[in-house]
Amino acid sequence: MHKKLFIPGPTEVRQEVLDAQAKPLIGHRMGAFTELYTGIINKLKELLKTDNFVMVLTASGTALMEAAIRNCVKKDVLCCVSGAFGDRWYKIAQKCDKNADAITVDWGRAIKPEMIEEKLKAKKYEAVTVVQNETSTGVRAPIEEIGAMLKNYPDTLLLVDTVSSLMGDKIDITECGIDVCLTSSQKAFALPPGLAVGIISNQALEKAKGVTGRGHYADFVGIKDYFDKKGQTPTTPAITLMYALDKQLDRIKQEGMENRYQRHLKMAQYVQEWAKKNFALFAEPGYESVTVTCIKNTRNIKVADLNKELGKRGFAISNGYGKLKEETFRIAHMGDLTLSEIEELIKNIDEILGL
Amino acid sequence: MHKKLFIPGPTEVRQEVLDAQAKPLIGHRMGAFTELYTGIINKLKELLKTDNFVMVLTASGTALMEAAIRNCVKKDVLCCVSGAFGDRWYKIAQKCDKNADAITVDWGRAIKPEMIEEKLKAKKYEAVTVVQNETSTGVRAPIEEIGAMLKNYPDTLLLVDTVSSLMGDKIDITECGIDVCLTSSQKAFALPPGLAVGIISNQALEKAKGVTGRGHYADFVGIKDYFDKKGQTPTTPAITLMYALDKQLDRIKQEGMENRYQRHLKMAQYVQEWAKKNFALFAEPGYESVTVTCIKNTRNIKVADLNKELGKRGFAISNGYGKLKEETFRIAHMGDLTLSEIEELIKNIDEILGL
Repeated sequence: MHKKLFIPGPTEVRQEVLDAQAKPLIGHRMGAFTELYTGIINKLKELLKTDNFVMVLTASGTALMEAAIRNCVKKDVLCCVSGAFGDRWYKIAQKCDKNADAITVDWGRAIKPEMIEEKLKAKKYEAVTVVQNETSTGVRAPIEEIGAMLKNYPDTLLLVDTVSSLMGDKIDITECGIDVCLTSSQKAFALPPGLAVGIISNQALEKAKGVTGRGHYADFVGIKDYFDKKGQTPTTPAITLMYALDKQLDRIKQEGMENRYQRHLKMAQYVQEWAKKNFALFAEPGYESVTVTCIKNTRNIKVADLNKELGKRGFAISNGYGKLKEETFRIAHMGDLTLSEIEELIKNIDEILGL
Repeated sequence: MHKKLFIPGPTEVRQEVLDAQAKPLIGHRMGAFTELYTGIINKLKELLKTDNFVMVLTASGTALMEAAIRNCVKKDVLCCVSGAFGDRWYKIAQKCDKNADAITVDWGRAIKPEMIEEKLKAKKYEAVTVVQNETSTGVRAPIEEIGAMLKNYPDTLLLVDTVSSLMGDKIDITECGIDVCLTSSQKAFALPPGLAVGIISNQALEKAKGVTGRGHYADFVGIKDYFDKKGQTPTTPAITLMYALDKQLDRIKQEGMENRYQRHLKMAQYVQEWAKKNFALFAEPGYESVTVTCIKNTRNIKVADLNKELGKRGFAISNGYGKLKEETFRIAHMGDLTLSEIEELIKNIDEILGL
């Protein structure tokens, strides 16, 4: 029996989107692919309301985290670490031989703009990395305020991981001044994993031109040049996943972005209310994620047992991430899931736990 | 109408393999994925007769070309350049800030072991890159002899691109002493693009441990550690493509590797004979590729016109690559294509050209 996924990625993918992958292949140097890919890019720009350069890379979001570092940082980068993915970005920067400094707060807390500004006043950084939606803790970073503050530091690029939020949580890429906004297909896009989307500002592209060692596969400059010349990707893309992406962008347009954002807010509110009534929220108040709720296991339930029972009924949720494995559990409410599906999940959890 | 692909990637994928992608998703941290992925790795090891570490990365083969450089080269690398993909690897090494030297021969020629040895005698290199099957020229590198020669240089790693050959052309990875053997899903595997397979020797893994700046996404050491501990990938993999890969490995096993190699040889022989009769081969005699034939356009036909006519009949072949665009054209005979499908293609070409 298939378990419907209420985990923070991969999320549930509708059958018609899965089926879109099964079309016969076309060559990635044929006109048919140019049409497919340029169509995808135009749809992404329209839905996300951005004029920045948009690219789709065959890889997970982590590859774009690494690419953001290799393209935009010669030497000094400041990494905001408030959970596992912020920490991953910090470690990636080190593994790319960059000088990375970290701002660290306890898991569950949000990093505020003034904490970043204090660091920027003391040292010049080429870029700041922020995980806008920390999947491990269910914390939403105040990216709007961080972006506003960073306007006073025009030479510092803002690199933002929106892997588990973009297309579900409303983020104004332009207004926030995000230079590299990156995400993955298998989260709020409600697609299979394998594609990463990057939205890159002109300032980031200009910076990249002066950074050596940025490689080839995820070289923003090379990818943009190729796209400008040929409307294609410089390396072979995951064509069948592109079929699904194209299909899904049409479905998202049909729903309407505002409706999509509202649906996510309603699902988040429902799960948060339930969690507050029966457990407690792990996120600092006011910084709760719109796409994934991290719940403090105040009743000391055995999450593995709960998930096993849920599995028999056709549902899957997530245990806590890493060091929070026993201390929390997580319910994702993103992608194409509906409020009634969330209600059904919660009803089943209530039954199992006798709530 | 679908055009059956006789291009050197992506190749034709059978409908039952395409359909395998449309199964509902599982979580990549669930036991079901561990079972799927460890199964895939075991099947790959069995079919390719290797005890080396095997990994599947969500990316195109180019990402593994870059990874081979970042993992295995601190400073000095020697790149064999006899076509577009050899040249790509040389440029990638430079874009990763390595000191890359090239051995260059005219396109269509093969690089011989003695040419490499001459370089190795003059300077110490950490690694040599060889494109075993140069898709742009239809030349098969003498990898068996190169491997034998390199046994006299035990500190120099052998990095080999088998993107358009592995699973179609018989390559003994152990006997050739290949330290990093890399390939892509969309060629002789007859799968959709999006997955890259790396087969990594212990010596390459040991070397990588001492190379900094190798990053995270394609860090061989990190990927192996994660696999050893959890039987999974450290970053989110393209799960639906893994479904197709698993299915296809079962189909390949059913055919039998020796049968598969023989089928490729027969298709190659057929196309080569036809090409010699009506045109000429571009590859240096004795070094013809088993998976793609590059044909000298001695009749000065308009390849675009031929392909347009073929398209109306449901077939696609390839023009020449890059600077060979008008001078050559290419017919791929790899993956799951059969001799009778090749015969049908050739019959149609004969009709169109009046041969």
